[in-house]
Amino acid sequence: MIITELAERSGLPSATIKYYVRDGLLPMGERISGKRTEYTESHLRRLRLVRALLEVGKLSTASVIEVLTALDAPELDITYAFESAQRALTRSVVAVTGEPSADSLARIDAVSDRAGWAYSSGNIGRVIAAQVIDAAEGAEVHLDDDHLDAYAAAANAVAAADIAALRDLPDRNSAARVMVIGTVLGDPLSAGLRRIAQTHHANRK
Amino acid sequence: MIITELAERSGLPSATIKYYVRDGLLPMGERISGKRTEYTESHLRRLRLVRALLEVGKLSTASVIEVLTALDAPELDITYAFESAQRALTRSVVAVTGEPSADSLARIDAVSDRAGWAYSSGNIGRVIAAQVIDAAEGAEVHLDDDHLDAYAAAANAVAAADIAALRDLPDRNSAARVMVIGTVLGDPLSAGLRRIAQTHHANRK
Repeated sequence: MIITELAERSGLPSATIKYYVRDGLLPMGERISGKRTEYTESHLRRLRLVRALLEVGKLSTASVIEVLTALDAPELDITYAFESAQRALTRSVVAVTGEPSADSLARIDAVSDRAGWAYSSGNIGRVIAAQVIDAAEGAEVHLDDDHLDAYAAAANAVAAADIAALRDLPDRNSAARVMVIGTVLGDPLSAGLRRIAQTHHANRK
Repeated sequence: MIITELAERSGLPSATIKYYVRDGLLPMGERISGKRTEYTESHLRRLRLVRALLEVGKLSTASVIEVLTALDAPELDITYAFESAQRALTRSVVAVTGEPSADSLARIDAVSDRAGWAYSSGNIGRVIAAQVIDAAEGAEVHLDDDHLDAYAAAANAVAAADIAALRDLPDRNSAARVMVIGTVLGDPLSAGLRRIAQTHHANRK
């Protein structure tokens, strides 16, 4: 298809598509004559993925390229693709502004132990969660253990559902793809549903 | 205290504090002589709150002012303060890029009904969650009902824990304060814990 058809089917202006190509977010189409470049269904799929990562995932261009590079590796390593998505999304979700306090890290480790999680001390989620405890304390809000455990139980349930959704996929490439999209879109999905639930519970109160 | 002590106790440079005052994020101190301005414990508390909202909540300056205005209203309206926090944080979490599809809105309504939530059609969370479904479909990832229901159950559990944490607070002002901080910090807390849980479940697989 030519760029105008790609634009129509993706819902993105041609100028935006050209910008994506220039920035390395989308491979070039095949030049079949001086003024005609041919794009394929695979370009359309890539464009939809890029759009989801940029607009809904709120990833930076550099982070999208990092995720795409991991997905495009000839020997696709699911764990590596997954960790790239985690790192990329994490930067868009929360600014890691420094070392969290030792106290807060210890509290998150205790929460993780109670949840039965095996994890590494370098896990980016551990740093973020500890940072939140520091920020809450700074704003004079104390998160007690029951409250943290409720968040951990919820996180455990969605992570288990995410992994279960990979079960029926035909191959490793599909699994890596769904894992990456799920990592990026799971946060806004949680945030959206949490707002509906908050309104419900606040009104009942 | 003078600004250097406020800087030391808050961990923020004096220049940043002056910038916050100029931008309306922090009330001016009391000028007690030509070159000496006095700040109080209440300035320190406000500074910690602003910092949490900006750095960990990733709110824009305009959104922080919106939240602070709601908290400072003479007749504090908890629902209003809460909705301001919801709106402000939501803009920082996900760009609302247009109308979600009717199909996706209908799916989120069905999820909400199954979760037993009373909600309004204008709820911002409903729009965000529907947008996520659209983005996932665009990236050729189908979120089935079981998967969405798992996210809804998790959102319900954390919202209930958030509201339960308000129970023991002494007055309405404290409740509004905790509600606002909780709204802003709950998302990165969920995101962090979800990453630890994902790593645990992915490694077990």
